[in-house]
Amino acid sequence: MPISSEQQAEIDALRANPQQTLRTVSAGMEAHLYHAYDVLDHGFIRVVDYMGDDAAICQAARVSYGKGTKSVQNDEGLIRYLMRHWHSTPFEMCEVKLHVKLPVFVARQWIRHRTANVNEYSARYSILDREFYIPDPSQLAAQSVINNQGRGAALTDAEAARVLDILKGDAARSYDHYEEMISDDGKQGLARELARMNLPANIYTQWYWKVDLHNLFHFLRLRADAHAQYEIRVYADAICKVVADWVPAAYAAFEDYRMGGATLSSTALDCVRRMLNGDIVTQESSGMSKGEWREFQAAIGKD
Amino acid sequence: MPISSEQQAEIDALRANPQQTLRTVSAGMEAHLYHAYDVLDHGFIRVVDYMGDDAAICQAARVSYGKGTKSVQNDEGLIRYLMRHWHSTPFEMCEVKLHVKLPVFVARQWIRHRTANVNEYSARYSILDREFYIPDPSQLAAQSVINNQGRGAALTDAEAARVLDILKGDAARSYDHYEEMISDDGKQGLARELARMNLPANIYTQWYWKVDLHNLFHFLRLRADAHAQYEIRVYADAICKVVADWVPAAYAAFEDYRMGGATLSSTALDCVRRMLNGDIVTQESSGMSKGEWREFQAAIGKD
Amino acid sequence: MPISSEQQAEIDALRANPQQTLRTVSAGMEAHLYHAYDVLDHGFIRVVDYMGDDAAICQAARVSYGKGTKSVQNDEGLIRYLMRHWHSTPFEMCEVKLHVKLPVFVARQWIRHRTANVNEYSARYSILDREFYIPDPSQLAAQSVINNQGRGAALTDAEAARVLDILKGDAARSYDHYEEMISDDGKQGLARELARMNLPANIYTQWYWKVDLHNLFHFLRLRADAHAQYEIRVYADAICKVVADWVPAAYAAFEDYRMGGATLSSTALDCVRRMLNGDIVTQESSGMSKGEWREFQAAIGKD
Amino acid sequence: MPISSEQQAEIDALRANPQQTLRTVSAGMEAHLYHAYDVLDHGFIRVVDYMGDDAAICQAARVSYGKGTKSVQNDEGLIRYLMRHWHSTPFEMCEVKLHVKLPVFVARQWIRHRTANVNEYSARYSILDREFYIPDPSQLAAQSVINNQGRGAALTDAEAARVLDILKGDAARSYDHYEEMISDDGKQGLARELARMNLPANIYTQWYWKVDLHNLFHFLRLRADAHAQYEIRVYADAICKVVADWVPAAYAAFEDYRMGGATLSSTALDCVRRMLNGDIVTQESSGMSKGEWREFQAAIGKD
Repeated sequence: MPISSEQQAEIDALRANPQQTLRTVSAGMEAHLYHAYDVLDHGFIRVVDYMGDDAAICQAARVSYGKGTKSVQNDEGLIRYLMRHWHSTPFEMCEVKLHVKLPVFVARQWIRHRTANVNEYSARYSILDREFYIPDPSQLAAQSVINNQGRGAALTDAEAARVLDILKGDAARSYDHYEEMISDDGKQGLARELARMNLPANIYTQWYWKVDLHNLFHFLRLRADAHAQYEIRVYADAICKVVADWVPAAYAAFEDYRMGGATLSSTALDCVRRMLNGDIVTQESSGMSKGEWREFQAAIGKD
Repeated sequence: MPISSEQQAEIDALRANPQQTLRTVSAGMEAHLYHAYDVLDHGFIRVVDYMGDDAAICQAARVSYGKGTKSVQNDEGLIRYLMRHWHSTPFEMCEVKLHVKLPVFVARQWIRHRTANVNEYSARYSILDREFYIPDPSQLAAQSVINNQGRGAALTDAEAARVLDILKGDAARSYDHYEEMISDDGKQGLARELARMNLPANIYTQWYWKVDLHNLFHFLRLRADAHAQYEIRVYADAICKVVADWVPAAYAAFEDYRMGGATLSSTALDCVRRMLNGDIVTQESSGMSKGEWREFQAAIGKD
Repeated sequence: MPISSEQQAEIDALRANPQQTLRTVSAGMEAHLYHAYDVLDHGFIRVVDYMGDDAAICQAARVSYGKGTKSVQNDEGLIRYLMRHWHSTPFEMCEVKLHVKLPVFVARQWIRHRTANVNEYSARYSILDREFYIPDPSQLAAQSVINNQGRGAALTDAEAARVLDILKGDAARSYDHYEEMISDDGKQGLARELARMNLPANIYTQWYWKVDLHNLFHFLRLRADAHAQYEIRVYADAICKVVADWVPAAYAAFEDYRMGGATLSSTALDCVRRMLNGDIVTQESSGMSKGEWREFQAAIGKD
Repeated sequence: MPISSEQQAEIDALRANPQQTLRTVSAGMEAHLYHAYDVLDHGFIRVVDYMGDDAAICQAARVSYGKGTKSVQNDEGLIRYLMRHWHSTPFEMCEVKLHVKLPVFVARQWIRHRTANVNEYSARYSILDREFYIPDPSQLAAQSVINNQGRGAALTDAEAARVLDILKGDAARSYDHYEEMISDDGKQGLARELARMNLPANIYTQWYWKVDLHNLFHFLRLRADAHAQYEIRVYADAICKVVADWVPAAYAAFEDYRMGGATLSSTALDCVRRMLNGDIVTQESSGMSKGEWREFQAAIGKD
């Protein structure tokens, strides 16, 4: 249960009191504000604040005095043009602030995206909760034999059960030890900044994360991708749903040009030209490595 | 007249239609939204959007589920603590978007602050207006003889008049030539991206500029400072007034710790200690250079 | 003549004294160090310092103790893999510092790339030289009628001559006025920070610019592109030549995947699939706008 | 033993082959190159590459054609001036690349400094070593009762022994379990990206970290500070020693103005003025909170 009833009451209070503003309002985003969307077994994402909408992208691109929008069709065309030609600055004019609860090993991947603002719950200052990510058995998979940094086949039931036993047992023991070390009941109690070092990477942490739309799209392209680790991809997927309602035109352009698109190399474009001319092109005659060829075939629907 | 009646109508329309939002609202900032505040002879700043308020700083620092604020006194204390100890990330959780009209030579100083988002009016795509910054005679000053990058005494009336004649004449002629070069009336007309190269640095440009509160404070500390060039300082001063109403507690802490404060070196702190012990300290016995000593005297009120 | 004999003597002195180092050395880059390569009529780029080479990219990707390289073929494969999969951080482990002399209107485009370090010659502190960019007549072109931010047909000789007369006359006059305003010969002399405002955007400035290889590639992709303005493209082209000698494997991957490649949208990939199946696809049946379709045709060699 | 004999051989090979370069060489830094300096029980820092020296700071500040240095005294004065007046860009013209081995909980603090380049050892791709940070008993301390995010008194021997037992036992068990889960000896073996989640935060990781001198100074000011957690402070201290030899003048200015200096608020400066006038100022009459007053007393040597 990711949110306690007390926390839910705080969230409900925030949703109960709309106020008047002169700012741009995204109706689609207002519906999401403060709602905690469950991710993994104890995690969530929730929108704490946002700035701008599709119109704000056009307004900035046009450096307008007023709203800066024209017809919807005109605005969509402009947004598609900006996305296609990598004009990233107008997308930076939208901003979103999320509250995220996530396992530490996911947080460590996430933070590699540096162009964002972060405030994380401090384990020097505060005591972490007893909450650990324990994968669903369906997510327990063997090391991939094709991709060195991915997963292969699902584990057998017996092997999965053994792994879950270990994860659950170690989580419980390490948290018991954490509590024992920091307890000042009849003793001094170890400083929190030291005691935390014994906690495994599947413990949950949380943070406020604020990012502009351009950098968020970059994050989503890499982390909602099929090659991303499942445990961060589910966060990216949850964020995608929110963004689609916040800035529908920008999100549609993102899906077409980034998520669903592909960057073809000079070599690959040449192969396309040859194939369209009726030539038979094989991996050997393509000039590509086996890995590249496999990715190329997938991009043009031949896999 | 920086804003045309048509532009004013667009701005008025934006101010006439408050909408409901669940987001944090800063009443002080709503009063400023979209108002264009005049700066220099044709420039302005106006707030196009904002995210967060004083409470949002505390909310992020506490990684809260709800509003995250406690008593006003408690929140002010937290904000002062964060500012004093250079905990900058909670201030990054507030964001502001400004529309600024400014001379190109001011824009060139401004853009050196890289941690911000910018969309500038494109002189490749569009035609610039006939608007040039012509200083008020009171602002025309000689090169400083103390500070190599500053102004000294005001120019005499005669010399100031001669300078103004030059500035006005060159501005008018260069704009006439700009129009003549791009005109396609009976000829081809030079491309805009080329014709702009003939325009002097006192022509006005405009941009949307979006920045978080931490980086805005850094900008204001350097640009609202007495050593900043007058023409950018007046923009910083205008922004300071808006920020003071947006996040009153954070702005008060900024004034106390940054604008009104001073960083004393190890050497300077040692001099303070000696002086408090009753020693007479001179520049010669201070271990400081003449410039440092002059600045130190100013900081401790001895100038 | 971009470099004076005195400046050349300084540069020669730097090239005359090799020293011993334990750092990684790129032989290709050493040959370029300090040489000023002419760009436009008075500009140049020259390499002042660099860090890393192709091997340093592999070393960082492998987090190695030693050099971290394997066979050349193996390293090239790794570099191509990193480039193809947008693993940008290993490329950030190489750094280059350039000294660039360029017209102000080019500098204003250049500085929009924010992830770099810059020290520009200060016109508050120093006096600018009498050097202005005057385009070669062959570069004077009319506003494009297809692309709102580009050039079309070359100007007729008569119109070009008229433009050059204006540019040369205004440059000379504005610099005469600049000198007159700052002169303290028999008068006070206007402060430099004010006098500079009268100088047009084709005056030359110069700066030190330091950037990592990943961000440099991003700059080059946008600025060495056929759609970039000619006056910045020639700088990008000059840098490309240097980079090709500095990190040959990384540069080859950049050429294949970025400069010579193209990002196809989901819609465009679908058209490729249909065409490979033998379908006739037209702009009308493609789902693309006219502009998109034109760019798509160019990418697959149908233009 | 942080470095294996095989790794040492790789490092020795790098140190054995000086090459010629035309670049700026810092003799002080060459002596440090590749040497691994032990930090904590299994960690280290070692310099992998660097760019620039004290002269490079002056060269960039002066935008010079040649070396850009004048007399040593002159250069030191310029560097002190730049540091005092927060002219940060010339310091950005020096760059250093470090290889660091550090516990994960230290890495999590470190990475909050975003303006740097990082390549971390991938636990998705590779298997982590059995190396955990086990504090020296002298470093085991109770939670501070004054500072909510710090340490207080040392633990008693008995309590320290109990803590060490827990840390050692859990480290050994979690690593045994890690090996067991990923082992494909007679079973499938869990994917590495999943198995790592069970490892505690005191396991060691390693990365390449590249940063410019300005941002490094910012890191060192916060992390070599007495309020920083001991386990990151020892890394900052080790880096300080290297930097002092790399850029002696810049480091001396950093020590005087940043490490040994203090920022006094407007309120604090006013108290100094009153005290120098002979007034008795107490916390009650100072206008400061108790915490502020305590820090102020420390700054002026009254603690």
